[in-house]
Amino acid sequence: MLNRNIECFMGCDKEAAEAGIVLFGAPFDGTTSYRPGTRFGSSAIRRESYGIETYSPYQDTDLEDTAVMDTGDLELCFGDTEKALDQIQERTQEILDVGKLPFLLGGEHLVTLGAFRAAVQAYPEIHVIHFDAHADLRDQYLANPLSHACVIRRCWELVGDGKIFSFGIRSGEREEFQWAKSHISMQRFDFQGLEETIRQIKGKPVYFTLDLDVLDPSVFPGTGTPEPGGVTFEELRKAVTLVCSEANVAACDVNELSPHFDPSGVSTVTACKIVREMLLALSK
Amino acid sequence: MLNRNIECFMGCDKEAAEAGIVLFGAPFDGTTSYRPGTRFGSSAIRRESYGIETYSPYQDTDLEDTAVMDTGDLELCFGDTEKALDQIQERTQEILDVGKLPFLLGGEHLVTLGAFRAAVQAYPEIHVIHFDAHADLRDQYLANPLSHACVIRRCWELVGDGKIFSFGIRSGEREEFQWAKSHISMQRFDFQGLEETIRQIKGKPVYFTLDLDVLDPSVFPGTGTPEPGGVTFEELRKAVTLVCSEANVAACDVNELSPHFDPSGVSTVTACKIVREMLLALSK
Amino acid sequence: MLNRNIECFMGCDKEAAEAGIVLFGAPFDGTTSYRPGTRFGSSAIRRESYGIETYSPYQDTDLEDTAVMDTGDLELCFGDTEKALDQIQERTQEILDVGKLPFLLGGEHLVTLGAFRAAVQAYPEIHVIHFDAHADLRDQYLANPLSHACVIRRCWELVGDGKIFSFGIRSGEREEFQWAKSHISMQRFDFQGLEETIRQIKGKPVYFTLDLDVLDPSVFPGTGTPEPGGVTFEELRKAVTLVCSEANVAACDVNELSPHFDPSGVSTVTACKIVREMLLALSK
Amino acid sequence: MLNRNIECFMGCDKEAAEAGIVLFGAPFDGTTSYRPGTRFGSSAIRRESYGIETYSPYQDTDLEDTAVMDTGDLELCFGDTEKALDQIQERTQEILDVGKLPFLLGGEHLVTLGAFRAAVQAYPEIHVIHFDAHADLRDQYLANPLSHACVIRRCWELVGDGKIFSFGIRSGEREEFQWAKSHISMQRFDFQGLEETIRQIKGKPVYFTLDLDVLDPSVFPGTGTPEPGGVTFEELRKAVTLVCSEANVAACDVNELSPHFDPSGVSTVTACKIVREMLLALSK
Amino acid sequence: MLNRNIECFMGCDKEAAEAGIVLFGAPFDGTTSYRPGTRFGSSAIRRESYGIETYSPYQDTDLEDTAVMDTGDLELCFGDTEKALDQIQERTQEILDVGKLPFLLGGEHLVTLGAFRAAVQAYPEIHVIHFDAHADLRDQYLANPLSHACVIRRCWELVGDGKIFSFGIRSGEREEFQWAKSHISMQRFDFQGLEETIRQIKGKPVYFTLDLDVLDPSVFPGTGTPEPGGVTFEELRKAVTLVCSEANVAACDVNELSPHFDPSGVSTVTACKIVREMLLALSK
Amino acid sequence: MLNRNIECFMGCDKEAAEAGIVLFGAPFDGTTSYRPGTRFGSSAIRRESYGIETYSPYQDTDLEDTAVMDTGDLELCFGDTEKALDQIQERTQEILDVGKLPFLLGGEHLVTLGAFRAAVQAYPEIHVIHFDAHADLRDQYLANPLSHACVIRRCWELVGDGKIFSFGIRSGEREEFQWAKSHISMQRFDFQGLEETIRQIKGKPVYFTLDLDVLDPSVFPGTGTPEPGGVTFEELRKAVTLVCSEANVAACDVNELSPHFDPSGVSTVTACKIVREMLLALSK
Repeated sequence: MLNRNIECFMGCDKEAAEAGIVLFGAPFDGTTSYRPGTRFGSSAIRRESYGIETYSPYQDTDLEDTAVMDTGDLELCFGDTEKALDQIQERTQEILDVGKLPFLLGGEHLVTLGAFRAAVQAYPEIHVIHFDAHADLRDQYLANPLSHACVIRRCWELVGDGKIFSFGIRSGEREEFQWAKSHISMQRFDFQGLEETIRQIKGKPVYFTLDLDVLDPSVFPGTGTPEPGGVTFEELRKAVTLVCSEANVAACDVNELSPHFDPSGVSTVTACKIVREMLLALSK
Repeated sequence: MLNRNIECFMGCDKEAAEAGIVLFGAPFDGTTSYRPGTRFGSSAIRRESYGIETYSPYQDTDLEDTAVMDTGDLELCFGDTEKALDQIQERTQEILDVGKLPFLLGGEHLVTLGAFRAAVQAYPEIHVIHFDAHADLRDQYLANPLSHACVIRRCWELVGDGKIFSFGIRSGEREEFQWAKSHISMQRFDFQGLEETIRQIKGKPVYFTLDLDVLDPSVFPGTGTPEPGGVTFEELRKAVTLVCSEANVAACDVNELSPHFDPSGVSTVTACKIVREMLLALSK
Repeated sequence: MLNRNIECFMGCDKEAAEAGIVLFGAPFDGTTSYRPGTRFGSSAIRRESYGIETYSPYQDTDLEDTAVMDTGDLELCFGDTEKALDQIQERTQEILDVGKLPFLLGGEHLVTLGAFRAAVQAYPEIHVIHFDAHADLRDQYLANPLSHACVIRRCWELVGDGKIFSFGIRSGEREEFQWAKSHISMQRFDFQGLEETIRQIKGKPVYFTLDLDVLDPSVFPGTGTPEPGGVTFEELRKAVTLVCSEANVAACDVNELSPHFDPSGVSTVTACKIVREMLLALSK
Repeated sequence: MLNRNIECFMGCDKEAAEAGIVLFGAPFDGTTSYRPGTRFGSSAIRRESYGIETYSPYQDTDLEDTAVMDTGDLELCFGDTEKALDQIQERTQEILDVGKLPFLLGGEHLVTLGAFRAAVQAYPEIHVIHFDAHADLRDQYLANPLSHACVIRRCWELVGDGKIFSFGIRSGEREEFQWAKSHISMQRFDFQGLEETIRQIKGKPVYFTLDLDVLDPSVFPGTGTPEPGGVTFEELRKAVTLVCSEANVAACDVNELSPHFDPSGVSTVTACKIVREMLLALSK
Repeated sequence: MLNRNIECFMGCDKEAAEAGIVLFGAPFDGTTSYRPGTRFGSSAIRRESYGIETYSPYQDTDLEDTAVMDTGDLELCFGDTEKALDQIQERTQEILDVGKLPFLLGGEHLVTLGAFRAAVQAYPEIHVIHFDAHADLRDQYLANPLSHACVIRRCWELVGDGKIFSFGIRSGEREEFQWAKSHISMQRFDFQGLEETIRQIKGKPVYFTLDLDVLDPSVFPGTGTPEPGGVTFEELRKAVTLVCSEANVAACDVNELSPHFDPSGVSTVTACKIVREMLLALSK
Repeated sequence: MLNRNIECFMGCDKEAAEAGIVLFGAPFDGTTSYRPGTRFGSSAIRRESYGIETYSPYQDTDLEDTAVMDTGDLELCFGDTEKALDQIQERTQEILDVGKLPFLLGGEHLVTLGAFRAAVQAYPEIHVIHFDAHADLRDQYLANPLSHACVIRRCWELVGDGKIFSFGIRSGEREEFQWAKSHISMQRFDFQGLEETIRQIKGKPVYFTLDLDVLDPSVFPGTGTPEPGGVTFEELRKAVTLVCSEANVAACDVNELSPHFDPSGVSTVTACKIVREMLLALSK
């Protein structure tokens, strides 16, 4: 009697034993310099997921047929960035240890670093596919090396040259674009070359990190640092489906939804649909 | 002395005798399951129509030269869906009886059923052209057969197989897409095949129902169930112009504007402009 | 490993066995005639409760020391009012059957009828204390007897004259105010006489129904039908504390929060704090 | 057949012949210096009036029993202040000419000048009762003598010393407060002395102008220049009822609602209720 | 000690002596007929410019390397349109007199007339490149010749036939489109022919006026009169870069951002980025 | 030629030499746990101050006659709380060193600690008058001792028992209220005893810290952690006037305005008016 009605991402209600993918949220935006609020992203995605269908006419599959568990949001320490990253790393580690795929919902982009530290330990040969409007390659931002604007630079320090493939980049300092030339592969503005990249790293474990601001703000206004000139929903939908079904994704994240800047609610629905398409493609 | 200043859709101020098209609103959203508010759609369209011009550079014609009467909104019974549908059917019948074309502004998509019941009686051979993001083909939704999510299925029950042509569909349950294959013609995602369809049903009376959420949410956020991945304004503008000028439209509706989810007001303006283009094309 | 992080009203995380009070939500607004959206009320209260403290300096007690279980929201049938009321009645019955106090979060005010039907069965001698801006005594509203505007009239039909005590009423039709004179006790505008009422029904089981729009809209804008001229937060806080600590409350509800009309979030916080004070007073 | 459903202030649907009071709107905010938008005030009041009851429990009377006609909004020339004032004056004159009471809905406060010019012609002995947060006594504002911030000064030029009684004033330049001492009667901050004033001008024709920003912004945020420290709804309700039932009101206006700064809608409802109470008291 | 922290458009902090381009704002919207608020446009652009980077990956240059001074907003007289235009003209004259390029931020589109009057005096042979959704060719609007809807017509009166090249026009009265045929060059809907135009007026001084509502409302909702069917960000970015780097721009303006209708903030960011790209291209 | 138009708090445009009070902003909200955004508070206060008058009818004085300099906002390091506090302390020190009164605009309440550290060094005998809804006496919050929820506890560590006088407190953990009894003077809910306190510490240097959430959310919704049940505008206005004119204020701050949660703009205006009254009282 009197069971609780538990909220999870729509259709992701499997028990731990049967799940192959484990969703969790990291409601952290402590280093956000411009417009804070991505701390509310993961819970908004979970809550609003009930507004979309579990069935995808794009892939002709249904979340009801997949094995995903949503473990809810972490309770992160506020004001101590390193400790928050430790908590994210620990949870990712737990999921990897039992042979499941961690799927992290941010939060700001820095949360990637916590999950990536665990992924590198589990898969030293890991490569990174990175979709974003921003290069995120600063060495420091406002004197802080642990900033959302530095997260890909920090990931690079863990894996070195030639392992990171960025797409859609259209904003950054001049120095970031110059630094990129000798250390990572960067496709500016769009997803050109993505198929080739996936072919190139075939078989290698991949960490896939998606900063939703790669989308044009007309499609996705609800983010801290919107950058006009981004990709369309269709372009992103095809690209994430490609990565999740063709690359060997070992862990992934979706971040930077800031629902307070999304008064019509459309950004949250867009995030939900992208997560659905990723879960379906990963489950194939 | 002391005349009243009556609000109608911009330029649609003809008297009953001279009007060929009769606009009316059905402010009903009683079965909306997710985000209610389309009950405010028709009055918002009427009010905000003054922000656009009566002249269309696309068609080089002007609403001032057309014969349209706007009779305002129905006062619908709330909480009794059947009774509301009866009121809509009755008004549609009245308009058809005097040989005019009824143009219904919703409200949620279920209002179509009221108008369609009258149209089927007047034109037993009627066909349906349906633009929508959602299949709306469920047999029941949350145990309710009279739901916005079932409206095209209810219409089908009145006309049978082969009469309904849906375009732009990108969301629904797996069962709806499967059911569609044997009962209606469904074009997913876009308007491909629309010209061919119009040619195919040339001369037949047509009921044209437009759920505005067929538009991409970047263009039209103000709706109850936004679905990323929709058509552009230009695609819809061309498609409605085609239907209204080439098909033999006997009655039509435009629905699912929910102005409370449109804080910038852009969705309402978009609805106004689409209604203007439809009225102009129908008047040719 | 991999436990789920379950959302409940702050501090209300007791298991069924130890709980004395059971919270549940009824996200229903199907008969709302003006501005819909109270369907989002109970989940907003639960979510935002984390913004307030568990400790009350007013009563010098703490939610951590109480025995409350939050069982989440019911999944109600939309579009069939009677069925939704049945579901609410059934859940209330279950809670009463195991000797616990049901605490219902709406939803629109009509949800009270579901819970009250169960309460009358359990306690035939039950009295009603009712705080509201509106009389809610219409026999029908827009031809519908099962409307939020008729809920106290429907309750009266179950218990008869002299059992209902309304406070704070400042809006209604002339007929409602006249009808009230011979059937219920109605205090207009404020809580004068509340202590006397509680003394008068001492020992009798009481159903306490709180429509939050009894508050002035300056304090509580987030409701479907705001009525200027209401009581202050302090007046309501004292009144609910009095009822919950001095009357013999057998069941209660708090309803009519509509978070979409509360852009600053203040109404939801106000609802949370009133619920906290009620839970603490009931637990004494 | 096919009647239009005409929008008017709730219950104010009498024909010209039977009406004793004539409502009209002046959607003008051309001199607003800070936050524009009162041009949308009168139509918002008309539209949202359906959210309140026609019956007042304060006065125990009903709008249904009154003789009020709502003639809708004027179509004012934008960008030529004098011409807009002429249009307002002309309409007021027309209403006075047939022996009815003009009730003007703004718009910014400058609209008062148009109506007052007509009232002074009809009633040379007219006195003014003025409720406002701002003195509005500047000789010029940003080099413009026809500004909302100068409107009472302009009215004074038409009637001279000792005829104007301002209440609730809490903002202005030092010079305005000093000038007031020798030319008008000004009660700062509240309504003290209002009864005495009404007694003093007993029998004299009165123009009553109500700037709704006299209310505290907690009650009435939706205005161009909110001023913390204002009166409560109850204080204003009592004061307008007193003026409208005890003074010899020959014409009146209610202005400065700016609905775009009222996201919860509460300010508009407040304006509606004040207008209702005024209409009821004037009709006694 | 105690220096002031002065707000300017990001990176535009040069002193007068070294600056080649001088930014200034004209916060005026006095003739706006529909939704006012562009008076807040220039200060919003300045404030939010800190959310974007100074470096452009499109042009591979940086605002830090340019010579731009931002002199802030003019303090314009409200309610006297001619006087406001005089102030804008005077400031433009001052900038032209010292051989610098004036870059005006509106405000509504009428502000162009003030700057253009100065530009015509300095460069009698000046041509106009005009991007807009609206023709702005009315002779009068609501009986007012000094309206935003007439601004290009007023400019034409200063330079005569064959000097004005409009692009992107998709809204206006029938008469405007017809008048245009014999007096100006008008490209409807898009930028087709822009390169040819620039070649044609090679060497001639050019006044470039950009009404941001040429953008589609999905990209740029925050404007007074949004017009669905506009150009994309990429189309506009390329077009302004072409004009500013290939034409001989002597003065320019960017106008019609209305931040109150931009709740997500995306329109302001879009305006900032377009201004950045223009400044960079002009500085080459 | 070409002077810049510098934005400062209205009327606070004195040069350093003549100023007796120096305003500066600290746009920091890095430890905010619930709803971030006070980082935008100081710039909103500065910008919106132009909506109020420089003259106060309460005190019959004018900001134009005072000697206040506004030095704008600090550019704080984000993500390193200690460094941000150092920057605030340093600026406060500079102001104190030249014998002027520092007036800090937050930002979250933690900014007080930076200013207070400087004030304690300059005035070792300093006492604290503290207006707030929250006790802010936690030893740690989410494992962080440098949190807004701990700021008064941190101040206490610098001055010891008997020096801190808190008013208006209505929220906190049970432990904070108990700890307060032996270490500070705390008046719950209101300002009772304020006059007595001022008399008691007559002649002692006073640091006055005002957390604006002491106001009721009906008056001041725009804050991170609104707490129903607070003081009215009039109560706060009188209390700050009393402190600033009767106590020996050596430094002060006003904090916790979060303009994103203030869609009507009323909270910002309220903050502006309180700051004006404080500046006027301090200047007497």
